Amino acid sequence: MVYARLGDDLLLHGAPATRLFRDLRTGPEVCVTVTLVDGLVLARSAFNHTVNYRSVVVFGPAAPLEGEEERRVALDAITDRLVPGRSPSLRPMSEKELKGTRVIRVPLVEASAKISAGWPEDEDEDYELPIWAGVLPMRTVTGPAKADRRNHDGVPVPEHVRAMETD
Amino acid sequence: MVYARLGDDLLLHGAPATRLFRDLRTGPEVCVTVTLVDGLVLARSAFNHTVNYRSVVVFGPAAPLEGEEERRVALDAITDRLVPGRSPSLRPMSEKELKGTRVIRVPLVEASAKISAGWPEDEDEDYELPIWAGVLPMRTVTGPAKADRRNHDGVPVPEHVRAMETD
Repeated sequence: MVYARLGDDLLLHGAPATRLFRDLRTGPEVCVTVTLVDGLVLARSAFNHTVNYRSVVVFGPAAPLEGEEERRVALDAITDRLVPGRSPSLRPMSEKELKGTRVIRVPLVEASAKISAGWPEDEDEDYELPIWAGVLPMRTVTGPAKADRRNHDGVPVPEHVRAMETD
Repeated sequence: MVYARLGDDLLLHGAPATRLFRDLRTGPEVCVTVTLVDGLVLARSAFNHTVNYRSVVVFGPAAPLEGEEERRVALDAITDRLVPGRSPSLRPMSEKELKGTRVIRVPLVEASAKISAGWPEDEDEDYELPIWAGVLPMRTVTGPAKADRRNHDGVPVPEHVRAMETD
């Protein structure tokens, strides 16, 4: 799910008709997690194989945003979390779209981050074995951007899209 | 979480002391999901922005594997799901490691796959706007492998690790 952070709030959005967003309307306590995998840690035994990662767990009361203006600000933040700088280039949101999107705020009061970054940790005696151990780094690459065939002639790839390309 | 498929079973593993694997011991119905993000779909309106993805949802009864031999086969499958061909190169699992790992099977009886792969779908009138729309592909790359500093001299990067390198 796409999300954004605005100040000390986590913002989520979705269609009011989906079960998740129907349930969130009543303001339950929720748990939201995000995990990024940074690599595979290959040890000398299967048991000590692991993964390098960064993860965060957020607990808190889900609160729907009721005001139209605060929903508009939150949705722009979500768009710009996906592609920084994109929202000013778009056709403005319509009333119908604003009404048709539920936005949920989870205050970042209770959160826990965990990072695992390192090398294989084997049993002492296993270091004597001539087994190759190490780390296989993993990362997500983005791009190159592909233009929609219905774009107007002469509209270049915008700078905010170019800035996302890592590949 | 690392997982494997063996025949028509999904296999999960973990330490018996963790809350998740304590709960799974009693064989509850579980829901397991895997999602791969393939790209960002940038439309002419914020509302029509979306993500290309492949996801699967599996429902079923979690059943702990009790036999030592079936746990060994399952754990090898999980290692080889992470890095195909790795398990034969490792120090064999000890009795203690086998006893210290819970393995859970979820039969693939009820599962649902969903793929979103495509281009922006905008409102008819929005195609008249000179806004750049398109797709930003995303993919995960792996490698290059980094050797542990405690590897023995002359131990080359094995072929099963080389085969994982996409970068």
